[in-house]
Amino acid sequence: MKLLEDRILKDGKVGAGNVLKVDSFLNHQIDVPFLSELGGEFYRRYRNDGITKILTIEASGIGIACLTAAYFGVPVVFAKKTPTNNISGDVYTAEVYSYTHERTYTIRLSREFLTSDDRVLIIDDFLAKGSALLALLKLVHDAGASVAGAGIVIEKAYQPGGGIVRAQGVRVESLARIAAMDESGVAFVPEE
Amino acid sequence: MKLLEDRILKDGKVGAGNVLKVDSFLNHQIDVPFLSELGGEFYRRYRNDGITKILTIEASGIGIACLTAAYFGVPVVFAKKTPTNNISGDVYTAEVYSYTHERTYTIRLSREFLTSDDRVLIIDDFLAKGSALLALLKLVHDAGASVAGAGIVIEKAYQPGGGIVRAQGVRVESLARIAAMDESGVAFVPEE
Repeated sequence: MKLLEDRILKDGKVGAGNVLKVDSFLNHQIDVPFLSELGGEFYRRYRNDGITKILTIEASGIGIACLTAAYFGVPVVFAKKTPTNNISGDVYTAEVYSYTHERTYTIRLSREFLTSDDRVLIIDDFLAKGSALLALLKLVHDAGASVAGAGIVIEKAYQPGGGIVRAQGVRVESLARIAAMDESGVAFVPEE
Repeated sequence: MKLLEDRILKDGKVGAGNVLKVDSFLNHQIDVPFLSELGGEFYRRYRNDGITKILTIEASGIGIACLTAAYFGVPVVFAKKTPTNNISGDVYTAEVYSYTHERTYTIRLSREFLTSDDRVLIIDDFLAKGSALLALLKLVHDAGASVAGAGIVIEKAYQPGGGIVRAQGVRVESLARIAAMDESGVAFVPEE
């Protein structure tokens, strides 16, 4: 999606450890009118797929998930990273390894909010090695729900996550796919 | 706001420790069309206040903050609860005591995204003892920005947070104010 690629080229910064910083519009400050346009693009791609629920993971997936859900008119449910007495005890769980924080954590989702009647669109800000997306797919599977696919804002296509998930037959729509990056710049996979 | 009070009466559950569970629409599953109506009400109340930015705190403030910001056409910035290499080192910080998790944590906000030019609306899902809201106000103050006020979805009016913050001269608009609650029900402060 050219709009997003242009924004990454303009405002993204490649920092230490080859981290792409997009905190000015995506995952710290949220450019709501801009992300709403991205949400509209996810809607265009999945509008005929019978989506009943959007699933994401806290925290930085929540904004784009809500702005996307506004087009579909469906609820968002977000997997929680910390145990909390705000949700009931009866939960689905999955393990995620965070390369950013270098630890494994358990994500939780109330069984009440994902059922076999649901047709799920998974939304997240990043896809790299795929740990979070695979964990979200496990939650959908455990709930007996069906997955229409995933909508990813930025995929690091030089990392294996996208390939692993697509090899499972899951549709993955990424709005920008990075082929390579370093401190001198970012190159994208050409759109089909 | 009657729409919200009715929803709390219908779907809220008072659980152990007098926790109000509204995880079916507010802070785990997010009823996006419904929260968008709440966002429209915050807009009605603050539309003439020159808001340039909406500030919230991860994770459960992000959804309502984004859906509110969509009306204002301004960015959201959310304070982070965990250190991360996704944001720059130059941050404002404040301490929050979580009664839910029984610990103090440090919230962080990049200095880049809150400046003396900003007129800030703080949005959060709950106001009880006020620890999170006071911390967000400290971030605004440290940035030299001005605060137009706070927009809270549910205020526990029998707890001191709202009074403490209003006594500082800060406008607080809560869409539902709970006067008392226990397992037999929830009573609201009458709307003025």
